[in-house]
Amino acid sequence: MRIGELSQRSGVAIPTIKYYLREGLLAPGTATAANQAAYGDEHLRRLRLIRALVDVGGVSVAAAREVIGALAREDLDPLELLGVAHDAVTPRRTPDRDSAEWAAARETASALVVRHGWMVSTESVGLDLVADVISALRSLGVAEAIEQLDRYADLAQSLAAFEVAGVIARDDPARRMELVVIGTVLGEALFAALRLLAHQHESAVQLGYHPTENPPGPATKG
Amino acid sequence: MRIGELSQRSGVAIPTIKYYLREGLLAPGTATAANQAAYGDEHLRRLRLIRALVDVGGVSVAAAREVIGALAREDLDPLELLGVAHDAVTPRRTPDRDSAEWAAARETASALVVRHGWMVSTESVGLDLVADVISALRSLGVAEAIEQLDRYADLAQSLAAFEVAGVIARDDPARRMELVVIGTVLGEALFAALRLLAHQHESAVQLGYHPTENPPGPATKG
Repeated sequence: MRIGELSQRSGVAIPTIKYYLREGLLAPGTATAANQAAYGDEHLRRLRLIRALVDVGGVSVAAAREVIGALAREDLDPLELLGVAHDAVTPRRTPDRDSAEWAAARETASALVVRHGWMVSTESVGLDLVADVISALRSLGVAEAIEQLDRYADLAQSLAAFEVAGVIARDDPARRMELVVIGTVLGEALFAALRLLAHQHESAVQLGYHPTENPPGPATKG
Repeated sequence: MRIGELSQRSGVAIPTIKYYLREGLLAPGTATAANQAAYGDEHLRRLRLIRALVDVGGVSVAAAREVIGALAREDLDPLELLGVAHDAVTPRRTPDRDSAEWAAARETASALVVRHGWMVSTESVGLDLVADVISALRSLGVAEAIEQLDRYADLAQSLAAFEVAGVIARDDPARRMELVVIGTVLGEALFAALRLLAHQHESAVQLGYHPTENPPGPATKG
């Protein structure tokens, strides 16, 4: 198909497609004439993946390029690709990590992982992110959330167990790798959105709204 | 205390504190002399809250101002404040929502909520965010994730149930409102980080790494 049809079928504007081509997120089409190229279903599929990562998953274009580059590499095993996908969804924020309080929070995070018998690298960025939250909660005097760490960890593991099982069940290795990326990024967006809805529900229930009443919803966005 | 001590104890640079004062995130101190003010423990506490929201929770300064302004309003009930907190963590991205595919995904999201008996506003932004993910998954041909929607919803509800119970257990109303905000924002960051660690663990387990081996961790960031 020509670039116009690719644009129409993917819903991505032509200048954006050209930008992805220049940036290497999208492989060049097959040249059919000077200044003209043909694109196939693989291009359409790749465009949809880019848009899902960027528009729905909130991944930057730079991080999306990393992930898509990693997908093309045949030497990466699934755990290595998972690391790249994790990097793509890891916030770029860098809170202060030099304090003694942060170091203590990092110890709490490591102890949590040991307690749950999780096989994770001691260098894992995830441990730093957990420590960021623990450190912030302590600075705010919110002890109860820290007492609940194990419940958070149990639920995260339940979620990860079925997410990973779904990926591994795939026969096609290329598709499996793609699912590692899609699952990491879109699974997070899905769970976060459902958690917000569940908060509304649980708040209504636990504050004693009767199911037939219409609880006040949150402000909607324009 | 003077602004210098406030800076030292909070770890926030003086120009940043002045910016928060100008922007109304932080109440003015008590004037002690021309061009000099005294700050109290409430200022320190508020600064820590702002940093937790912005640095750890990834909330924009503008959204943090909204949330902190809402905290000061005595006419908001907890559900209304929850709506404001949700808005603060809701991504500003706006994927294409005009297609028939998106409308169908929105129907799937509504049906999910009805199936789980959740009391949520039909206008809830959370429903739009769930629809964004469902629509993206369908466009990528990832049907299994959609079959798992109910498991995602069950886990989100388990998480929300104990998060909300922890907030409601608080006696002090002002503190309870603060916890709505802290819990919404930091709880999401905590769960997302733990999910990444649990993915590493479950991948190692389900791919058959032996617990005594050292599975390859993801690339660490500099």
